[in-house]
Amino acid sequence: MSTVKRHKIHLSENEMPTRWYNILHDLPTPPPPYLHPGTGQPVGPDDLSALFPMDLIAQEMATDQYVDIPPEVLDVYRLWRPSPLYRAHRLEAALGTPAHIYYKYEGVSPAGSHKPNTSVPQAFYNAKAGIKKLTTETGAGQWGTSLAFACAQFGLECEVWQVKASYDGKPYRRLMIETLGGTVHPSPSDLTAAGRAILAEHPDSPGSLGIAISEAVEVAAQDPTINYALGSVLNHVLMHQTIIGEEALKQFAKIDVTPDLVIGCTGGGSNFAGLAFPFLREKLAGRMSPVLRGVEPASCPSLTQGTYAYDFGDTAGMTPLMKMHTLGHDFIPDPIHAGGLRYHGMSPLISHIYESGLIEAVARKQKECFDSGVLFARSEGIIPAPEATHAIAEVVSEARACIESGEEKVIVMVLSGHGHLDLPAYGAYLDGTMTDHSYEESEIRDAVAEALTRLPAIPGQ
Amino acid sequence: MSTVKRHKIHLSENEMPTRWYNILHDLPTPPPPYLHPGTGQPVGPDDLSALFPMDLIAQEMATDQYVDIPPEVLDVYRLWRPSPLYRAHRLEAALGTPAHIYYKYEGVSPAGSHKPNTSVPQAFYNAKAGIKKLTTETGAGQWGTSLAFACAQFGLECEVWQVKASYDGKPYRRLMIETLGGTVHPSPSDLTAAGRAILAEHPDSPGSLGIAISEAVEVAAQDPTINYALGSVLNHVLMHQTIIGEEALKQFAKIDVTPDLVIGCTGGGSNFAGLAFPFLREKLAGRMSPVLRGVEPASCPSLTQGTYAYDFGDTAGMTPLMKMHTLGHDFIPDPIHAGGLRYHGMSPLISHIYESGLIEAVARKQKECFDSGVLFARSEGIIPAPEATHAIAEVVSEARACIESGEEKVIVMVLSGHGHLDLPAYGAYLDGTMTDHSYEESEIRDAVAEALTRLPAIPGQ
Repeated sequence: MSTVKRHKIHLSENEMPTRWYNILHDLPTPPPPYLHPGTGQPVGPDDLSALFPMDLIAQEMATDQYVDIPPEVLDVYRLWRPSPLYRAHRLEAALGTPAHIYYKYEGVSPAGSHKPNTSVPQAFYNAKAGIKKLTTETGAGQWGTSLAFACAQFGLECEVWQVKASYDGKPYRRLMIETLGGTVHPSPSDLTAAGRAILAEHPDSPGSLGIAISEAVEVAAQDPTINYALGSVLNHVLMHQTIIGEEALKQFAKIDVTPDLVIGCTGGGSNFAGLAFPFLREKLAGRMSPVLRGVEPASCPSLTQGTYAYDFGDTAGMTPLMKMHTLGHDFIPDPIHAGGLRYHGMSPLISHIYESGLIEAVARKQKECFDSGVLFARSEGIIPAPEATHAIAEVVSEARACIESGEEKVIVMVLSGHGHLDLPAYGAYLDGTMTDHSYEESEIRDAVAEALTRLPAIPGQ
Repeated sequence: MSTVKRHKIHLSENEMPTRWYNILHDLPTPPPPYLHPGTGQPVGPDDLSALFPMDLIAQEMATDQYVDIPPEVLDVYRLWRPSPLYRAHRLEAALGTPAHIYYKYEGVSPAGSHKPNTSVPQAFYNAKAGIKKLTTETGAGQWGTSLAFACAQFGLECEVWQVKASYDGKPYRRLMIETLGGTVHPSPSDLTAAGRAILAEHPDSPGSLGIAISEAVEVAAQDPTINYALGSVLNHVLMHQTIIGEEALKQFAKIDVTPDLVIGCTGGGSNFAGLAFPFLREKLAGRMSPVLRGVEPASCPSLTQGTYAYDFGDTAGMTPLMKMHTLGHDFIPDPIHAGGLRYHGMSPLISHIYESGLIEAVARKQKECFDSGVLFARSEGIIPAPEATHAIAEVVSEARACIESGEEKVIVMVLSGHGHLDLPAYGAYLDGTMTDHSYEESEIRDAVAEALTRLPAIPGQ
């Protein structure tokens, strides 16, 4: 029986972690505060209360090392969690690599991605605060689907602005959100002042996450029974995702294995943070020493080519100013298929940690990502979300390097979701119509510098 | 902690059953044999060898109670098996029922349904026999996807004829099969004599499983390196699916619960048989006494309204004659969204067991099925395949009856797959364009009688 290969390292429901991890507690230096665009001063809880319930605002600013997960949230998590940690035996065999490849598969959630890890607590805390409806943006649609699922669990309405390029190109996503009880609009829409302003200037705008955020925020800000929910970027969102890494640590402990390299794709940064932050805690404490690496698209390279500066989180300038790696708040990324990675900024927390030298970042082009995604699908069976193919491409590259070096490197990635609703992207790859886009460094640098001139005055920037 | 509800009853990889169950061993009487359409005599192994490898032919005719699952098949099964048995706490709460509802969720497979339980061994035995390519038919596409997945695992080519109504209406399915390495043609196609004959008479034919089977069989029969694979109906296919019920028995034993009612949807019958046959063994042995019930669509009611008679398995008359509940081999079912249930016949083995009075059958219309499917999606989170909504509708009906009776009935169903690639069906339900169709008994009876006049002479029919 020694030839039986174990594919999944499993945790039972009662082994599921019951606390989220807050990395703010353990960082050598704290990240710069969010600033109020009117005053240039750090925002306080009241500044955020038009959009978020106090429980989430408290989590956004918390410095405790751990936050207990409410029983009502744990109960919904148990519909799919703990998620499996896979050893990718068949991908390793297809590559002929001595590397040991693991993936933490978040596509087992009902919505098909890691996003319900935060949509569920966000819906719970809003329902607890008496809110009736949540608005949000979505790109490829993983987040909109996840928020619709969570709202159905807690009796909230859900209204989603979806980036028009994705709304048109991936029609199944709208149907999935509607089946779960949500409402979807293409963004830019004529339902908001922000959307109408964009349409007046660019009637054929393909949209962007920045524009969709402006629309969802505008609607939420005008009604006290409506709040807004964000699917990535913010501290509390990243914290909710740490259940991924906490589970992975338990799973690796079960097989007495320690990763050398931890990989995730990065758009706003939440799936990467969810896996990586608990490993970073272990590294900061000297208990292990993995390399932590985010992988972003070459056509939206915020970490690798963006400027680290205060900027708006949305296009219309309705959010607080956040110090982050940014391509400029009015940057419209190339309409690549990984819609979830088309965001002009990077989580301020990840940006700060990157500046602190604690994590690495690389950028990859979409065709090589789909090369690896198809290889993964045909070996492991799972068709990955386009976003997740970026992590896979990096893993494949590292695993191929191990063939040369002979190193049995232990690599773990988060497979953020499946690509069932992104199959037109695979169609474009298979029929040869997929294109690549990347930028000259100067092109990005100059555009960002120009965008930042349109910000209000900020002390020290 | 007594308030913590367990959602999933889990088995570890090393608890997975290692044998399939062959119900032929335990039936009070054997089912009637398949007949050669030329001679009217029972078919032997050689008659099937143009289409199937000898290992599968032996399984088709086996009378042993159990067949060992090869290690190579177990290794692929472990990519997703054992599948979870869920307690549907949230559906129960949404209904307010005292019933205890369980579902065995087969959508966790990479292909998204129960079909890989048989596509994997079929691909394995064919590869072992030196076959280079498998052909098949598919309706909604769950089977085609599953065979493409399995062929990729064992290095076989895969060519799929998909019922044209589904090919046109659910384009993501073709993309999924292609991403996994398969080739897809709409059926009827001009690639085969069978397809060309249909197109000559009905250029706009929406196709049927019977026609697609004729096309796939025709291509396989002409080349010794090509074999054919069937996704349901046959004994060996149903036997491969019994891993569902064997796992469920182990899972119920873990929580010391015995079901009162076992439910599955029935097209060709394989997911129902997979869950129900191991429970039927226990019932025949006097160890439990559950009711076993198949649920079919009102617009394709083979078990509840078909005639029990010898008929062809395909439209063109290329298969052996099988005694089964049939709507006539040239019956073209209404193009309902549950494409996997649009088959004119029922598994001969299930038909025989139904005639023996060991299982029950009911028919349901698609709109009430989608009512229950949407309720399920918004409570349990999983969007069910249209086929599976038939089982859910029956469960919901039974659970509502328990509200009246106060009975804490234990109900288990097989949730055969997710509906991610069937979302246009949910769109039609949500926008009110979905229609229902059913038949007068005389309408079906007369059509079948007429179709059966076109068969070759059969002793005793």
